[in-house]
Amino acid sequence: MEVVSPINGCSGDTAGRVIICKAAVAWGPGEPLVIEQVRVDPPQKMEVRVKILFTSICHTDLSAWKGENESQRAYPRIFGHEAAGIVESVGEGVTEVAAGDHVIPLFHGECGTCRCCKNPKTNACEVMGVNPMKRTMTHDGKTRFTTADERRLPIFHFLNTSTFSEFTVLESACVVKIDSEAPMKKMTLLSCGLSTGVGAAWNTVNVEAGSTVAIFGLGAVGLAVAEGARARGASKIIGVDINPLKSIVGKQFGITDFINPRDSNNPVHEIIVEKTNGGVDYSFECVGNGEILRSAFLSTHIGWGTTVMLGVHTSPKMLPLHPMELFSGRKVVASVFGGFKGRTHMPQFAKQCIKGVVKLDEFITHQLPFHEINDAFQLLIDGKSLRCVLQF
Amino acid sequence: MEVVSPINGCSGDTAGRVIICKAAVAWGPGEPLVIEQVRVDPPQKMEVRVKILFTSICHTDLSAWKGENESQRAYPRIFGHEAAGIVESVGEGVTEVAAGDHVIPLFHGECGTCRCCKNPKTNACEVMGVNPMKRTMTHDGKTRFTTADERRLPIFHFLNTSTFSEFTVLESACVVKIDSEAPMKKMTLLSCGLSTGVGAAWNTVNVEAGSTVAIFGLGAVGLAVAEGARARGASKIIGVDINPLKSIVGKQFGITDFINPRDSNNPVHEIIVEKTNGGVDYSFECVGNGEILRSAFLSTHIGWGTTVMLGVHTSPKMLPLHPMELFSGRKVVASVFGGFKGRTHMPQFAKQCIKGVVKLDEFITHQLPFHEINDAFQLLIDGKSLRCVLQF
Repeated sequence: MEVVSPINGCSGDTAGRVIICKAAVAWGPGEPLVIEQVRVDPPQKMEVRVKILFTSICHTDLSAWKGENESQRAYPRIFGHEAAGIVESVGEGVTEVAAGDHVIPLFHGECGTCRCCKNPKTNACEVMGVNPMKRTMTHDGKTRFTTADERRLPIFHFLNTSTFSEFTVLESACVVKIDSEAPMKKMTLLSCGLSTGVGAAWNTVNVEAGSTVAIFGLGAVGLAVAEGARARGASKIIGVDINPLKSIVGKQFGITDFINPRDSNNPVHEIIVEKTNGGVDYSFECVGNGEILRSAFLSTHIGWGTTVMLGVHTSPKMLPLHPMELFSGRKVVASVFGGFKGRTHMPQFAKQCIKGVVKLDEFITHQLPFHEINDAFQLLIDGKSLRCVLQF
Repeated sequence: MEVVSPINGCSGDTAGRVIICKAAVAWGPGEPLVIEQVRVDPPQKMEVRVKILFTSICHTDLSAWKGENESQRAYPRIFGHEAAGIVESVGEGVTEVAAGDHVIPLFHGECGTCRCCKNPKTNACEVMGVNPMKRTMTHDGKTRFTTADERRLPIFHFLNTSTFSEFTVLESACVVKIDSEAPMKKMTLLSCGLSTGVGAAWNTVNVEAGSTVAIFGLGAVGLAVAEGARARGASKIIGVDINPLKSIVGKQFGITDFINPRDSNNPVHEIIVEKTNGGVDYSFECVGNGEILRSAFLSTHIGWGTTVMLGVHTSPKMLPLHPMELFSGRKVVASVFGGFKGRTHMPQFAKQCIKGVVKLDEFITHQLPFHEINDAFQLLIDGKSLRCVLQF
């Protein structure tokens, strides 16, 4: 098969050929990513090859990079799932996007035909939904990445996306076209964290004007929840974080009250219940910790309070709630990708973001060239960045 | 204070006086109830005294009678919370009902003024909601029942109602007036089990025509869920019970498929998932057992399946679910009194029942005179009755 090394843009002469380009390859848990040449095969049936323009790093990448979940370890691998790019070429049967389209990748795909996709109550997809165990393409069970050296080692895919590469191949269910006028750098945010947070407030629950909200964990997702709640006119948005700097950062995203659990001997939920005359309408757990989840649950008002789980719980511990506690009328639900059906809802959501319904700029705290990706990881580890966008 | 022993009806000459009448008094856990004379004080501020015409026995009475929850033990006590009766007299400040009104008692009251009562999302009531620990009246912290002998021992109230007595005193928030033409014997059912089951299907979730349902435990509440689902046009109503007779009984209430867990080596949820091409839309746990709750959860379809808890979980075991399992999109919620706000919704629900939207007759499998109450308990213990109505 013919091989090309495109320098810039998608001239069309790469279609059907193997592309050699730069990627950040993970060779072992916690080891620095290696920027190296990789071979990217052409897209097969119902696949799309995309030139990534921008990518950023989310905590899921960090956790996967550390290899926290042993069963998910597979190397070499290309991580990354928050990005924006341009379609380079499409495989057989792909009709919804074409070369040159501006797209964002979807780690939580939407096949459009399974029972879940046809049901407006859910954004689950039984075929292309998020699957941390998946590491090859559906069509033939193989990878589209191989090492550029003579070993031709397969390089595993990650979360349907693998965006830490100049070019990547995605299932067509995992790509959505957005307005070609949309600012690509900012659109990167829609691919995961921003949509997850804003959507949790808008779709998973329906934060109303005047309602009260508590958010546990003020990373990008937690702050995106705040921004979603602010856009809806929530009257009180309480942020909870052990990092005192988040008290300042949070104000930009509508946080009206800040609680640092280390500043008080009283349980956080008691402080919140007191502040809100009985509890908030909605609480959001953006950490992935059972004790914090319980605190978030107890922070809501009996009768109707709903806790939304956004954090990934890696501990084997079961839900720290007694069945009878649910008879208080409090609810717990989980939210994946903010309840958005990626291909159905993202074009419209992108328009709302461009209009300014949701602020985007404030989430991009850093920008680095792609080859400094290991520095970007460190910024996230140190809690210094919300999103560091990497430019190719 | 003057004392009267009314023989029949509510002539009006009892108002303001202590009434001496028959009641079934519990003197210790699991001991046969004693039919004896008791003194019933006149209703105080915001209280109503009701002449009970019919009462029936629900599993909550059974559990309380057995004294299963040690912290709730208090004797002597008058149990009973499913009933229908006629207002004999009202205390100061009561305007919503008057002597002669036909009413049903509400174990889960509706004060009408707390934050929960004002919120259409819940039927919780912060003031008069169900409270198994409550055993005296709110106004003065005393009982309205005392023994008729010279000891004048206070007899504790139960679940805001204490209907195993010819006369009882209730908080006005725990009484609702119904149409005087309504058949009182059948209206007894609305007071707890029937409303709990039908309302869980109608209010807590919103069972739609064509949807699929699984019900774990086919006692009166489980069968009321079936009846509610049938009335809504559910296409498949799967009943699960270890009592093989429920397969026949269930058909009357719309059960389309019956599973006896003892008839198969496969887990019940696997059978249900296979029967329904991925799982039911709604499952209902009417037993109060963690393992069964987990089975009900796994029986629902990923993405949107909702499990409604109706059973009382007396074990200290926590929810047998891992937080990440909620990311499947499955939900668990609990339902109290079927999500009905008692005073707001019961008059309309009673009308629907009278019209035949919901079948009532089939739930009344037995009828006995009040003094045979211990036999009625035995019928329920033996699983022979759905509801045995006791007539005064």
